[in-house]
Amino acid sequence: MFVNKDTVMVYDTDYQGVAHYAAYYRFFTDAIENYKKQVLGIDINAVSNELWFVVVESKAQYYKSLHINDVISVELNPVVSDSKKSITFNLKIKIDKTGETATEGYLTMVSINPKVWKSVEMPQNLIEKFKS
Amino acid sequence: MFVNKDTVMVYDTDYQGVAHYAAYYRFFTDAIENYKKQVLGIDINAVSNELWFVVVESKAQYYKSLHINDVISVELNPVVSDSKKSITFNLKIKIDKTGETATEGYLTMVSINPKVWKSVEMPQNLIEKFKS
Amino acid sequence: MFVNKDTVMVYDTDYQGVAHYAAYYRFFTDAIENYKKQVLGIDINAVSNELWFVVVESKAQYYKSLHINDVISVELNPVVSDSKKSITFNLKIKIDKTGETATEGYLTMVSINPKVWKSVEMPQNLIEKFKS
Amino acid sequence: MFVNKDTVMVYDTDYQGVAHYAAYYRFFTDAIENYKKQVLGIDINAVSNELWFVVVESKAQYYKSLHINDVISVELNPVVSDSKKSITFNLKIKIDKTGETATEGYLTMVSINPKVWKSVEMPQNLIEKFKS
Repeated sequence: MFVNKDTVMVYDTDYQGVAHYAAYYRFFTDAIENYKKQVLGIDINAVSNELWFVVVESKAQYYKSLHINDVISVELNPVVSDSKKSITFNLKIKIDKTGETATEGYLTMVSINPKVWKSVEMPQNLIEKFKS
Repeated sequence: MFVNKDTVMVYDTDYQGVAHYAAYYRFFTDAIENYKKQVLGIDINAVSNELWFVVVESKAQYYKSLHINDVISVELNPVVSDSKKSITFNLKIKIDKTGETATEGYLTMVSINPKVWKSVEMPQNLIEKFKS
Repeated sequence: MFVNKDTVMVYDTDYQGVAHYAAYYRFFTDAIENYKKQVLGIDINAVSNELWFVVVESKAQYYKSLHINDVISVELNPVVSDSKKSITFNLKIKIDKTGETATEGYLTMVSINPKVWKSVEMPQNLIEKFKS
Repeated sequence: MFVNKDTVMVYDTDYQGVAHYAAYYRFFTDAIENYKKQVLGIDINAVSNELWFVVVESKAQYYKSLHINDVISVELNPVVSDSKKSITFNLKIKIDKTGETATEGYLTMVSINPKVWKSVEMPQNLIEKFKS
């Protein structure tokens, strides 16, 4: 499990005073990007000219609202599909102060060849890294 | 069924050349907001000082990428829960040019009293409007 | 002068209850995009594979805060530079209800050849359209 | 001078492959927020129920485009106005790899009492912190 620390910023909030739907995209993306840099050593979206990842499914349940300046821990667990053509990042957001789970969800990305925009199997060495 | 026409703008895209995850938030929100104004005649997020709607669950499946300047139709179908405390907006995005379904998903919102931040039943007249 | 009608949406606001800095980017961009489509009949950012526009300067003064659901008129006046290599879009946001000027500013874009990322003169027929 | 390190993320880019106008809002905001936390120990936007800061003017010149994964240094220099009612954050973005200045600009914020939404003088101890 990879954990990314983050803070709810002014641009993550709306006039209802809590983090909005799109902010979770930032929280999830930042966790995935930092996992990629610190654990995989690659750019997960555009690994190369022949291997990109694109989001095909996303789901999130919002149990607790997040407020400005909340310090959060975004927990990330990657699961490679049996087809080796997609990866699901399971994500959980916890509020550091209280330990409460604020959000649970996932993003599923498919590996494609951007030249033909078709799904392809991920290279074995990348699969190993996801599983380690 | 309510249909909202929209166009993929420059700020909806990222360097991979297609609409990003957060753009769908805008497409969904704009459809809900226009539905609210044109059909319900209310502000769905903050109906009054005693009735707000907050997102508790979201899901989307992305079948086809959306590109800059694509004209889209966002179809919206609201379903009130048996508890009368939540509303699910089923959403489908179609690409006008080809008729293809690009995205399917939903947003579920719970009606709360913002003063105590607790769920409450929606007023009957609002439920009627959602069902009509 | 071109006028674009817009409405302050939930995603344009932050927890201080007013439209945030980045929302103005949307208001300005939507005005420019609609001007482009309705008046010029082109895509101002990527006119062709050999002519793109990129923002080189932006300025805005915020006199009045904008609130959720405010209906606004974004006035746009384009001015072509003497070098014919840049265009300044002067922008003014007025609040329809009161007629007050909320914001004044401009965006300056340079025309470039994206293949070499160098500034180039705009074609004469485009300059004519900006001036008409 | 305060320096904030940042990285250009996928959501900062658009289909032209470079950081878009609104991304600079994030770069500037993150620099100001981190300056606030690390140097001032306060929340610059909503210092208290009686003291908020709101943006009244912004300007930026974009000399060099920023690309995905660019590591940047955002330099911040605060200047208190003679009226003691506003603060200008001068900002400069440098690309770490080349040392080039990509962007120069400023954000000016006025201190207000949010209850009456009128400008007020900043407290002397805050002014001292800005000047130190």
